[in-house]
Amino acid sequence: MSTLSIPVSVPSPYDDSEQLRKAFEGWGTNEGLIIAILAHRSAAQRRQIRDAYAQAYGEDILKALEKELTRHFEKAVLLWMLDPPERDAVLANEALKKWSSGNRALIEISVTRTSDEMFAVRRAYHARFKRSLEEDVAVHTSGDFRKLLVPLVSSYRYEGLEVNASLAKSEAKMLHEKINDKDYGNEEIIRILTTRSKAQLLATFNDYNNEFGHPINKDLKADPKDDFLFALRSIIRCIICPEKYFEKVIRLAINKMGTDEYALTRVITTRAEVNMKQIKEIYYKRNSVPLERAIKKDTTGDYEDFLLALIGEDA
Amino acid sequence: MSTLSIPVSVPSPYDDSEQLRKAFEGWGTNEGLIIAILAHRSAAQRRQIRDAYAQAYGEDILKALEKELTRHFEKAVLLWMLDPPERDAVLANEALKKWSSGNRALIEISVTRTSDEMFAVRRAYHARFKRSLEEDVAVHTSGDFRKLLVPLVSSYRYEGLEVNASLAKSEAKMLHEKINDKDYGNEEIIRILTTRSKAQLLATFNDYNNEFGHPINKDLKADPKDDFLFALRSIIRCIICPEKYFEKVIRLAINKMGTDEYALTRVITTRAEVNMKQIKEIYYKRNSVPLERAIKKDTTGDYEDFLLALIGEDA
Repeated sequence: MSTLSIPVSVPSPYDDSEQLRKAFEGWGTNEGLIIAILAHRSAAQRRQIRDAYAQAYGEDILKALEKELTRHFEKAVLLWMLDPPERDAVLANEALKKWSSGNRALIEISVTRTSDEMFAVRRAYHARFKRSLEEDVAVHTSGDFRKLLVPLVSSYRYEGLEVNASLAKSEAKMLHEKINDKDYGNEEIIRILTTRSKAQLLATFNDYNNEFGHPINKDLKADPKDDFLFALRSIIRCIICPEKYFEKVIRLAINKMGTDEYALTRVITTRAEVNMKQIKEIYYKRNSVPLERAIKKDTTGDYEDFLLALIGEDA
Repeated sequence: MSTLSIPVSVPSPYDDSEQLRKAFEGWGTNEGLIIAILAHRSAAQRRQIRDAYAQAYGEDILKALEKELTRHFEKAVLLWMLDPPERDAVLANEALKKWSSGNRALIEISVTRTSDEMFAVRRAYHARFKRSLEEDVAVHTSGDFRKLLVPLVSSYRYEGLEVNASLAKSEAKMLHEKINDKDYGNEEIIRILTTRSKAQLLATFNDYNNEFGHPINKDLKADPKDDFLFALRSIIRCIICPEKYFEKVIRLAINKMGTDEYALTRVITTRAEVNMKQIKEIYYKRNSVPLERAIKKDTTGDYEDFLLALIGEDA
């Protein structure tokens, strides 16, 4: 569930645009007003504001925001203003441009979105970057990562809940054998993780646990520093419980020496309207501190206010 | 362009359904009437007839056709009645169930459809088979074929006409090197053929030709009996000129000892409303015989009449 709070009576997109224009004009920018408006509008309403602003002032509001805002606040607002598929396309592209094997944005986007959402991302990627997502993944990655990520971003998983129990059993066994042989980049592991439906994979992971006495991810921790194992574990965690996965990304982003604003912004802007409520609950259970308090401690200024507004806790 | 002839004034789908019902009833089936109606309706009109028939008689017209018709005629009419994405999904599934490395239906569908059409096929595959297409491809194929076909059916190629000339040059060189080393299943060959846009690939193949003095497909004929080389050549032919590719499929289907009705039916039912006119023209140029005459010589009865109607030549 969403953490966004939207006023009962929302001004027209033209009125919102006018207020935002005022916030940009004159001496200094009125960041508070920008947050008060944009952090309390749905994706569809923000899209209408973008259109209305362009019509009224002949300028893309994203360009105006870019001019007026700075640093982490700017980055967060700009991401927030994009349509969800376009935002994911931008995040995927950024991850590829500065590709490192420890980056998990690409995995996160490919696995936690629905099949149709992910297809919309690929379509948005065409429109914005004039190339296909899989094309860029193939060019920027190599070795086992390429073998894993190209099918991962290209897959269109079946989303029915049907499960083939004997298939789950045989594929759990297959996964166990390959992992046991430390053959992590094996094509059967990749085939299973990238093509099977999430319902089928959950059954396979359960079977693995039942049959071999511990979760599959425990066996994938043989070398905690190995980025490829980390990638496999991330895929599995995103399938088993995306909310827990996101809680952990936020936790690590906050607990780091020096906050990881890149991860914090990514998760909050992409999840606020989806399942941020559950992520917050899990965060509280896991850390005994409300996420709001953790964010207040770790961030400052307009960036802090904006994130808090998105997770439902206005300053 | 389509070869379908649709009457200026088309009866309502209910009237068509009533006529078809009459064609099914009584002593023997009136195949002529079935052809006179169904071979002269567009995909959208056939869909309306399916809906109207189900509403009027509480039965799927496909079931009725299955009961009334036989052999190649039945197969052709049933394929023809499916919505194009569902038809392609069925053809892909059939190709996989009786998978042989010489089968080219899967390649043909993946490469000659537009990116959005191919995505619609994947969606139809979910609905009909409760699995993803790439999942079935991965299960039914192995080795180099799996490495090639999984990304091929999963790709969502960029369709803009922009071409990067220096990229075309470097990838033409890369292709030449790998082919020269007879390393045909090399991951770079597969990456280039499965992810690059068709416009970019055309530039790359032109560059290959200019740089190395002959078309890339000539170098892929080293062993004419090798099915993997045949698959690579088919992909390239489908990219360079799908109409020429289809002409050859028809030519071989007709020239075989014993007509290859599977291929003939597939190409005519899937291409009649798309580019059959161009395919017929190329056929005539290449064989000095009109396609109609070749089909008349090679097929008989209702099957013959139906194919002729689809290619615009009623008996």
